[in-house]
Amino acid sequence: MQPVKIGLMGLGTVGGGTATVLMRNCEEISRRVGRKLEVVHAAAKDIADQTILDGAKVTLSEDASAVVNDPNVDIVVELIGGYSPAKELVLQAIANGKHVVTANKALIAMHGAEIFKAAEAQGVIVAYEAAVAGGIPIIKAIREGLSANKIEWIAGIINGTGNFILTEMRDKGRDFTDVLEEAQALGYAEADPTFDVEGIDAAHKLTILASLSFGIPLQFDKTFTEGISKITREDVNFAEELGYRIKHLGVARKTEKGIEMRVHPTLIPEKRLIANVDGVMNAVLVKADALGPTLYYGAGAGAEPTASAVVADLVDVARAMDSAVENRVSMLCLQSSKLQ
Amino acid sequence: MQPVKIGLMGLGTVGGGTATVLMRNCEEISRRVGRKLEVVHAAAKDIADQTILDGAKVTLSEDASAVVNDPNVDIVVELIGGYSPAKELVLQAIANGKHVVTANKALIAMHGAEIFKAAEAQGVIVAYEAAVAGGIPIIKAIREGLSANKIEWIAGIINGTGNFILTEMRDKGRDFTDVLEEAQALGYAEADPTFDVEGIDAAHKLTILASLSFGIPLQFDKTFTEGISKITREDVNFAEELGYRIKHLGVARKTEKGIEMRVHPTLIPEKRLIANVDGVMNAVLVKADALGPTLYYGAGAGAEPTASAVVADLVDVARAMDSAVENRVSMLCLQSSKLQ
Repeated sequence: MQPVKIGLMGLGTVGGGTATVLMRNCEEISRRVGRKLEVVHAAAKDIADQTILDGAKVTLSEDASAVVNDPNVDIVVELIGGYSPAKELVLQAIANGKHVVTANKALIAMHGAEIFKAAEAQGVIVAYEAAVAGGIPIIKAIREGLSANKIEWIAGIINGTGNFILTEMRDKGRDFTDVLEEAQALGYAEADPTFDVEGIDAAHKLTILASLSFGIPLQFDKTFTEGISKITREDVNFAEELGYRIKHLGVARKTEKGIEMRVHPTLIPEKRLIANVDGVMNAVLVKADALGPTLYYGAGAGAEPTASAVVADLVDVARAMDSAVENRVSMLCLQSSKLQ
Repeated sequence: MQPVKIGLMGLGTVGGGTATVLMRNCEEISRRVGRKLEVVHAAAKDIADQTILDGAKVTLSEDASAVVNDPNVDIVVELIGGYSPAKELVLQAIANGKHVVTANKALIAMHGAEIFKAAEAQGVIVAYEAAVAGGIPIIKAIREGLSANKIEWIAGIINGTGNFILTEMRDKGRDFTDVLEEAQALGYAEADPTFDVEGIDAAHKLTILASLSFGIPLQFDKTFTEGISKITREDVNFAEELGYRIKHLGVARKTEKGIEMRVHPTLIPEKRLIANVDGVMNAVLVKADALGPTLYYGAGAGAEPTASAVVADLVDVARAMDSAVENRVSMLCLQSSKLQ
């Protein structure tokens, strides 16, 4: 059978991780899909800089629109990030009849409604497991694993940078600014850390989780957002003395007045499992009516953990493509035999 | 569109929970599937005793084979438990071209190979999310969420009764026998508690997890199995003094010599998340090459948590049935238009 042909936009941390995982675990992934997933076209800002795809038979472009317009590509993977040109590229890919996999939380939180509508009209899939909580399969858990339930509330540590900072402040008695500088040096935090430390990144992810959990539109602007930049060492120490941990949570809850969405620092009793999620790790706690509470814990960022979610989406899309083809083929046989 | 027609075998704890969840969350579930999931036929040992399905338009039988032979049933749900007659009923359902959903870990661990082979030959689905860790969507997480990865090891608290006993022994300084009697009175433990306290139930579940994680045959007889019945209050206290918790784990690990599978009490440093999974709760920790460690926590037993997994499987099977039908219909249209 022909390989599934992947077009990769972005060869940074996650793009590089995705190419690496696809190549290293090629055998296992091919067995699970029933055919090979092959990167046939990749775009990066500076293709001379990339070495990950060396030796692979891949077309390289500096213009990402070459990927979405490549008739040879079945699935476009958007790992550029940000709103624009990611949005235009994704919409063009959909218009060209291609399935899309993205890790872009900002894009889905802000423009998801428009993108999903376009995808539905074209009969293509847009998958975004990697947009929330990195490699943790939380989108799949909520959408499929908990499909029997009414969800009552969700509460998550969904920004690894913020959780790393709070953990260091508590464990080592350090100041916010001091830890932030280290996080930037380690590559956990961006040069402009606003999205992470002011809760905007967490609010993007919460918007997506709430939309899925409660079947509501994506409403980023309705999310109350407070960051961790005002938390002091003294706050952390007082919480500790009282038997609590300070965690930066995204919370969405069904109330009588509608769905409440908020991101802010929270005091959690130290005995609770989620209070013990430390460092750059993420965790999402979901309270559902039949199942009760479940918690999903793992790496919320990083090259290969995020790539794990991107590739899982690719496998899902490839399986959906093949089950469609299989049914068409079996129908074709059925039709032919009927016509004889 | 016609409802998906469910045949339910067993109306005990999980069967009753499944009927309840299907009725209570009917609206949400129907929206997710695109049509209704309707119980049309149910079998119970003593149908006069059942009240759950009162008022529903359901055929009731005391002979479960009436369900698997009912031409009106699309999906058979096996919630009888044990090896026989569950095995014969499931094989008959498959032979009759019906999809099967089961919560029966013993059946899958011991006879899964034969059952899956029969299902493949018939082109039907056998789903068993509820067989491991109750409502936690761990089968889906491993099979689909982690499909990009090579799994290195898994370690799980996968028997709620055992974990309840160990938690009570530690928290309240009680003896094994004393807590076991309470667990039996509370309905957490069976009158014959051997499967739970001697690790057999955990070994069934570990067999299934290992088979999925490493792509190996189901090999229950290859699992080293030690229970918790020899653990004393003193053991628990010593562990505590040294900064450890005793947890009853199922562990499967890739080694140079092959896959190692074992179930036994384990000392875990008290700081670890899994050491803090208490009471009847379950948790499975999975270490994968790209994703790193992830943990899945939730209720491992009980009527509605287990029903949550059974119904999630029903939703998945119904979606697969419909995507097949949809593709056949669109093919039919395509064929017709070509022929004109």
